[in-house]
Amino acid sequence: MRSRFKTRFEDLGLDTKTGNGGYRALNKDGTFNVRKQNVPFFERINMFHSLVTMSWTSFFTILVTVYFGINLFFASLYVIIGTEHLTGIRGTTTLEKFMDSFFFSAQTITTLGYGQVAPLNLPANIVAATESLLGLLLFALATGLMYGRFSKPYASIKYSTFGLIAPYLDINGFMFRVVNPKYNQLIEVEASVTLSMQRKDKSDQREFHLLELERSKVILFPTMWTIVHPIGENSPLQGISADEMLERDAEFLVFIKAFDESFSQTVYSKSSYKANEIKWGEKFTYLTKRHGTGVSIDVGGIDETYKADLN
Amino acid sequence: MRSRFKTRFEDLGLDTKTGNGGYRALNKDGTFNVRKQNVPFFERINMFHSLVTMSWTSFFTILVTVYFGINLFFASLYVIIGTEHLTGIRGTTTLEKFMDSFFFSAQTITTLGYGQVAPLNLPANIVAATESLLGLLLFALATGLMYGRFSKPYASIKYSTFGLIAPYLDINGFMFRVVNPKYNQLIEVEASVTLSMQRKDKSDQREFHLLELERSKVILFPTMWTIVHPIGENSPLQGISADEMLERDAEFLVFIKAFDESFSQTVYSKSSYKANEIKWGEKFTYLTKRHGTGVSIDVGGIDETYKADLN
Amino acid sequence: MRSRFKTRFEDLGLDTKTGNGGYRALNKDGTFNVRKQNVPFFERINMFHSLVTMSWTSFFTILVTVYFGINLFFASLYVIIGTEHLTGIRGTTTLEKFMDSFFFSAQTITTLGYGQVAPLNLPANIVAATESLLGLLLFALATGLMYGRFSKPYASIKYSTFGLIAPYLDINGFMFRVVNPKYNQLIEVEASVTLSMQRKDKSDQREFHLLELERSKVILFPTMWTIVHPIGENSPLQGISADEMLERDAEFLVFIKAFDESFSQTVYSKSSYKANEIKWGEKFTYLTKRHGTGVSIDVGGIDETYKADLN
Amino acid sequence: MRSRFKTRFEDLGLDTKTGNGGYRALNKDGTFNVRKQNVPFFERINMFHSLVTMSWTSFFTILVTVYFGINLFFASLYVIIGTEHLTGIRGTTTLEKFMDSFFFSAQTITTLGYGQVAPLNLPANIVAATESLLGLLLFALATGLMYGRFSKPYASIKYSTFGLIAPYLDINGFMFRVVNPKYNQLIEVEASVTLSMQRKDKSDQREFHLLELERSKVILFPTMWTIVHPIGENSPLQGISADEMLERDAEFLVFIKAFDESFSQTVYSKSSYKANEIKWGEKFTYLTKRHGTGVSIDVGGIDETYKADLN
Repeated sequence: MRSRFKTRFEDLGLDTKTGNGGYRALNKDGTFNVRKQNVPFFERINMFHSLVTMSWTSFFTILVTVYFGINLFFASLYVIIGTEHLTGIRGTTTLEKFMDSFFFSAQTITTLGYGQVAPLNLPANIVAATESLLGLLLFALATGLMYGRFSKPYASIKYSTFGLIAPYLDINGFMFRVVNPKYNQLIEVEASVTLSMQRKDKSDQREFHLLELERSKVILFPTMWTIVHPIGENSPLQGISADEMLERDAEFLVFIKAFDESFSQTVYSKSSYKANEIKWGEKFTYLTKRHGTGVSIDVGGIDETYKADLN
Repeated sequence: MRSRFKTRFEDLGLDTKTGNGGYRALNKDGTFNVRKQNVPFFERINMFHSLVTMSWTSFFTILVTVYFGINLFFASLYVIIGTEHLTGIRGTTTLEKFMDSFFFSAQTITTLGYGQVAPLNLPANIVAATESLLGLLLFALATGLMYGRFSKPYASIKYSTFGLIAPYLDINGFMFRVVNPKYNQLIEVEASVTLSMQRKDKSDQREFHLLELERSKVILFPTMWTIVHPIGENSPLQGISADEMLERDAEFLVFIKAFDESFSQTVYSKSSYKANEIKWGEKFTYLTKRHGTGVSIDVGGIDETYKADLN
Repeated sequence: MRSRFKTRFEDLGLDTKTGNGGYRALNKDGTFNVRKQNVPFFERINMFHSLVTMSWTSFFTILVTVYFGINLFFASLYVIIGTEHLTGIRGTTTLEKFMDSFFFSAQTITTLGYGQVAPLNLPANIVAATESLLGLLLFALATGLMYGRFSKPYASIKYSTFGLIAPYLDINGFMFRVVNPKYNQLIEVEASVTLSMQRKDKSDQREFHLLELERSKVILFPTMWTIVHPIGENSPLQGISADEMLERDAEFLVFIKAFDESFSQTVYSKSSYKANEIKWGEKFTYLTKRHGTGVSIDVGGIDETYKADLN
Repeated sequence: MRSRFKTRFEDLGLDTKTGNGGYRALNKDGTFNVRKQNVPFFERINMFHSLVTMSWTSFFTILVTVYFGINLFFASLYVIIGTEHLTGIRGTTTLEKFMDSFFFSAQTITTLGYGQVAPLNLPANIVAATESLLGLLLFALATGLMYGRFSKPYASIKYSTFGLIAPYLDINGFMFRVVNPKYNQLIEVEASVTLSMQRKDKSDQREFHLLELERSKVILFPTMWTIVHPIGENSPLQGISADEMLERDAEFLVFIKAFDESFSQTVYSKSSYKANEIKWGEKFTYLTKRHGTGVSIDVGGIDETYKADLN
């Protein structure tokens, strides 16, 4: 049984039948290049997740829109009830009354409650009591979202823009480098690299190879780490030229796992290098220098390379 | 010692003596089909857990009820103290005075404090100061609950409604498929499937078999995953017919573990297929298509199958 | 090297030189029976941890005391500034003025702000602005603490009061049972049991034995789990009588690890059985019954046993 | 392949070319002794992380400054709009009007809203409604930060100030000890120690050795743990004198991983001992005593040693 069905799957869970050319499994930012269709809206989105991961601009736009909309709604209610049932309304035209109601609503929903304007009859009191409760709940929600946005875990790993095919010992290697630009300390960092390319015989199907790395784990990650796959005899890259790599639509899928000491949680980072993001015959510049009792690292130079003849 | 007592337990921790027919260990939603009796109320429930997992309807009902109830209580206190000790009370009948007190209470507990009505004597001041503190604490609680509800971890895995007995290579296999309909990215997904059925010799007892899977782990889970148990020579399903499966009250217990990259936490999903949720002689339709540089997946078609002769 | 120094440590990290009799390493609730001395106060306590783990009574007492104390302090400030600089103060005696200031302070710190009383001059305004900021921060703290208290992880595992020495197959076994009385679902539950007792030769020193268990892990934990150490030929309990167990001050240290599916986190539970908490010649009553399509379990009967002759 | 490239990396991910003398890889508090240069400000810092890890003094300074600054800004807006559009402004000079506006702003942003002063015209109302929304959001942020600060995970492990070269069995050993001074319970504590020193042949390069420990894990950590590396035949410390250790700029890198039961999370602690923080020929004083049914430990005596002749 075991020998018959338990083959080694190196495709990571990706599809193998993806048709010819121009395919990318992982976007540069590590998300899946996949569209999910025919999923009902509420099954597809996780509202909390969306509100936590969207940009600050979108977040504040939604927030201000909701605040404005709710106040419009309650202002209308107060106008319908009749502004004569609120003390301190000074507006005389309909527009002025609506404005006064609008700002009374804003003072109520934020629980500001100057009291310059205040509800007098039963319906106005009911609406105001409801609005202030709603305000507290919405604010509770906003508090949770702010916390969620700020404490959101993520591996802040920065990748070199290009991968290199460079001389390595007496052979060559595929290499790229990563750095953690943040003050957060990442430890126990593990990397795996999988090569995906079109099969030689059937160009509409893909083959996957987990690449052996010079080193797949570092305990401490204070500076930069150049991740190297030595192109030895058994490497699937052995004998492959730059042209063939392009032709077979190669993609290097990178998968990094680390422990973020600052937030005490495991974080993942994914990325990929397509064949046209590989430079041949260049090496990375060494960027670490002694600095006082420690070292300094020129993070900005992560993409610096120099020419080096391949073996 | 080891060889004598350390037998392999494949029952997962479930009971083996469950009597004849119609037994289900795991509900479709993955919860245990178990009633715990004679547990004191406060030992049984975890209030936070209950308030976080109940439906939004129940949650808001409780919330509004509590808000209403507390205001009733404090309104009564203000009436007992005497509404003449609050400024700005305009009601003259008892009901009107109670109403005014009720809305004053609402303005106090939400820390709205218009000031139209305000406490004047010592008892009224004490009650108002207590109520506003209570209001802040209840609101702190509500904030925590809202956050708990929204950030609650869960594996959003969707299962095909039916499991299939379908041709697989030159034999047959038991298979079902799963998809993650959310935008959340699940990685390092592991599955295990255990078959539970009545023993042939003693029909009031159950036997358990951990089923060997074609593949028990995927690193990435961008689209769909068809989980397959090949019915090879050593499979406990070898030679079992659809009728026997029903008769022996078979249940396939599914257990999936994954890492939710978005929330940086490990999540679990459980489900089960009973014998009557298995279709014989059908295969799943392939749902992935090339789409731009990536692929698209028709999630809505998860249950689509076509007829296929069994080997 | 390895063979010389890498002996197997089974003491778990506990002290072996603990003197004669009456020693208990783990309290019944799983905490260490250890006093740490000469630790400066602020190095010893973690304020958040203390406020989160203390009883609700202590927590509310502290909270009300702080609220009262802060209001006393600010009331004094307003009196020192002069209550003539607050509008709406109606008190005439010093006590009345202090009272009015006290409630004004309460209205300010909760951001209630009726406005019946309000600051008029610069010092009063500065104090009020400071107090309302302080109020918001304290409330932020309270919100965090409420959330911390409610979402605090813990393994709600309930142990049988006594351990048993009972017949097991054709020999005997040491056994106790555990149940999860909560609705929270625990999965992947692992147990380890270590026996600690005085050495035969040196009674002021202790020896430790990790006991082999019939089963050390269950995947699902829906009902009860009887954890069994079979007293086979190699068991350190082989040939030990009830009297010797008491004399050698035996303690069974129990250590359980589980994954709480509801909160998506790993939880631990510890406990211990001393020699005088062991019953000889009794077996646990079987408490599971078929109930509808599932089973029911009589959690309240966890301590029920019946007489059974030892082998 | 495997044998050729998969050498054992013992450098943990640290740099090996660090030049002569006086180098320290890990600061005493466990942070990396590294400066990251040429990282854009917003790529480098994680605002939440910074605000959560800074000292309370810095945190409150920032907080008060922000509160003051925002009120200055809004006070200016109200003055520009014209204080005649606010009721209850009593100031007559520009300064007095500004002051009144400032405190009105403070009452608005905290949602205190006495109502003594209140906005009358459209621009004043718009500014006040905006300010109260901003106030709620800032307060939501502050709540999250307070919670983040308090619930921040950290291993509270305290190290002995000095490491010792002391007699151990019939040879010597390198040892230091650790204690958890907090009430938090740490369990499953693992330690690893790596020796880093200049190479004998090339003094500008460093070699790294993972040191074999007498014991690298304890399950329970109730008292103190003396971590020992026995200097046996294969130890890289074999035959090294105190002088050589200083000359070769030795550094012992300590890495401890534990599970904090109170917060249900994995925590890490790092530290290092430089050659000049090692004492030769001393042993640690035994600090545990029997106390009632348990033991007591004199945590304050963690650095106590006595003379002991080396083997």
